[in-house]
Amino acid sequence: MGVLKGAIARVNPQIVIIDLSHEIPRHNLAAARFCLANSYAYFPPGTVHLAVVDPGVGSQRRGVAIQFPGGYLVGPDNGLFSGVFSLSEPLVAVSLTNNHYWGTQQPSGTFHGRDIFAPVAAHLASGVALQRLGELIEPASLVQMHTDIPTVTDNKIIACVQHVDIFGNVITNIPAKMVPEPLKILQIGNQEIPLRLTYSEGTAEQAIALIGSHGWLEIAVNCGSAQRLLDINTGDRFEVCFQD
Amino acid sequence: MGVLKGAIARVNPQIVIIDLSHEIPRHNLAAARFCLANSYAYFPPGTVHLAVVDPGVGSQRRGVAIQFPGGYLVGPDNGLFSGVFSLSEPLVAVSLTNNHYWGTQQPSGTFHGRDIFAPVAAHLASGVALQRLGELIEPASLVQMHTDIPTVTDNKIIACVQHVDIFGNVITNIPAKMVPEPLKILQIGNQEIPLRLTYSEGTAEQAIALIGSHGWLEIAVNCGSAQRLLDINTGDRFEVCFQD
Amino acid sequence: MGVLKGAIARVNPQIVIIDLSHEIPRHNLAAARFCLANSYAYFPPGTVHLAVVDPGVGSQRRGVAIQFPGGYLVGPDNGLFSGVFSLSEPLVAVSLTNNHYWGTQQPSGTFHGRDIFAPVAAHLASGVALQRLGELIEPASLVQMHTDIPTVTDNKIIACVQHVDIFGNVITNIPAKMVPEPLKILQIGNQEIPLRLTYSEGTAEQAIALIGSHGWLEIAVNCGSAQRLLDINTGDRFEVCFQD
Repeated sequence: MGVLKGAIARVNPQIVIIDLSHEIPRHNLAAARFCLANSYAYFPPGTVHLAVVDPGVGSQRRGVAIQFPGGYLVGPDNGLFSGVFSLSEPLVAVSLTNNHYWGTQQPSGTFHGRDIFAPVAAHLASGVALQRLGELIEPASLVQMHTDIPTVTDNKIIACVQHVDIFGNVITNIPAKMVPEPLKILQIGNQEIPLRLTYSEGTAEQAIALIGSHGWLEIAVNCGSAQRLLDINTGDRFEVCFQD
Repeated sequence: MGVLKGAIARVNPQIVIIDLSHEIPRHNLAAARFCLANSYAYFPPGTVHLAVVDPGVGSQRRGVAIQFPGGYLVGPDNGLFSGVFSLSEPLVAVSLTNNHYWGTQQPSGTFHGRDIFAPVAAHLASGVALQRLGELIEPASLVQMHTDIPTVTDNKIIACVQHVDIFGNVITNIPAKMVPEPLKILQIGNQEIPLRLTYSEGTAEQAIALIGSHGWLEIAVNCGSAQRLLDINTGDRFEVCFQD
Repeated sequence: MGVLKGAIARVNPQIVIIDLSHEIPRHNLAAARFCLANSYAYFPPGTVHLAVVDPGVGSQRRGVAIQFPGGYLVGPDNGLFSGVFSLSEPLVAVSLTNNHYWGTQQPSGTFHGRDIFAPVAAHLASGVALQRLGELIEPASLVQMHTDIPTVTDNKIIACVQHVDIFGNVITNIPAKMVPEPLKILQIGNQEIPLRLTYSEGTAEQAIALIGSHGWLEIAVNCGSAQRLLDINTGDRFEVCFQD
């Protein structure tokens, strides 16, 4: 991690670097995607967000830089940024083919964060135009994860689990605005789960739903694990009905 | 954590941010209080210390900003800063009621660090006067923890444990200056504990006392746990006699 | 750790501080030495590298500041920097005897990082000349670790393990340039280990050798631990033959 910052400082030591998280489990794209989606809005407009969770490093997956309304994103094109795009649209995207902005002309096969992404992000943060970093690509061609967009029908939402946090809280891909008011009960399979405002309104035996501080519909068990109670995991799909 | 820094950078991206510790156990006020008390003096005068260990977030506990001789403190009024005040006096304190300096007009119920404390600390570090952040309150009304001040009588000190570190060293609330010289033995209950200069002067069977690098009287077992040997915990009171 | 940065900021709050790693196991000099050796080249020329893994704090071990082609090194003279010197030569070295640049005239016996090394590094980064920090010493007198330089004979290399990473990959002290091309097989004891380009070319039963992203000959087991398979540890010596 320190080496990435060294690579940034080599390009421009005046860049202000903020660590977003070092607690993403190894290779856990869903956790990284969730973290980014729920963090970017708290940073200054124009921020360059560098993210490297990159199990496919050295394979054919593209490296990309993307402009979106909140600033810029730099990293592997593997779905990492698709959570951001479920909230805010990509505007311009390039494939990082211009090795003039890489840290080395011979990048290692195993550490593109250090050799490509960090130097490119540093150049972008220093004022280099996005278009100079490589070839324009279609924003629509950027890799999505199947957790990205819930499907809404007349009386239900086909949704999925985008993340399970360390407490076992199940965070769905349903944004607060998609939850009808006044809502009393939501039904998942044959379970009825009441909507509440805070964790403390639940009991250890009964799952509750609430809008988390991140703005997503979340299923939780007070002092317990909703993941275990519902036997549900990241990426799992489910149908939700809303009842009065 | 990264999000707090984003919230600071949104107010003023030029603020220098230093992470004091991310290793405070969840909700462990005593550990956070101890860490702050023993760290602030190593920072430049005028530093704004932002601290968020906040089990009561969303309840009636106040948010506060405080001026003291070493600089400023911002966070919840739950005793977190009382260790600092056992060493250095609060001069001016305000309750953070002026939402003009918050990050949002609708703070979440669960994350005041991001929504209130970080933006307020950033404004303070950028030169906004303390008094503009909210209503003046009495420094004497700030929450203390019962670990804060030992009671001295003619021949003993009624003290307590302010912290047990990860090695099981028991750190009392007795400052070095309260330890009479030349001191040979201190007595806790019916145990006699010799005062030494370094950990290595003890054995695995015998607790020793020493003045730790933090400046407090500490009880330790070389290569062992004083906490286990004495069966004593954070907050526990005890009486100490000093013998020649 | 935060306190070290406070001590730096007290000298000069404008210094840009980058954390290299907080994941060095307690007192593990070999891991710290390896981390430094493989990181410094990714930082800007002239960087001051402050490193504190210091099991001998308070003993007679020297504190040192060293100029080398990549910048400066500050810390205890206990072999921590010897990995850097296996790649790049020390040019000028001083013993940190000038207490004018320390953070306090009465350094604690247990935390020279805070009281001596961090303030000295901050003065150096602020433009104070190396020679003013203390007495000149012979670079050749700096402490080496016995892992430092492999011995080459006609048909073999006497090498040792400089580090075992968290995956059990065994990193030798043989640099890439010492590995003859075209190399097919290397022999350690009576084991023949094929040289490959990536981890994925190995199997769970067969150790492979490869040049790691750090530039050292490394022995690995795909999805397994080479350390366990070879029963070998940091500091262990072994002989390597290269076969066509």
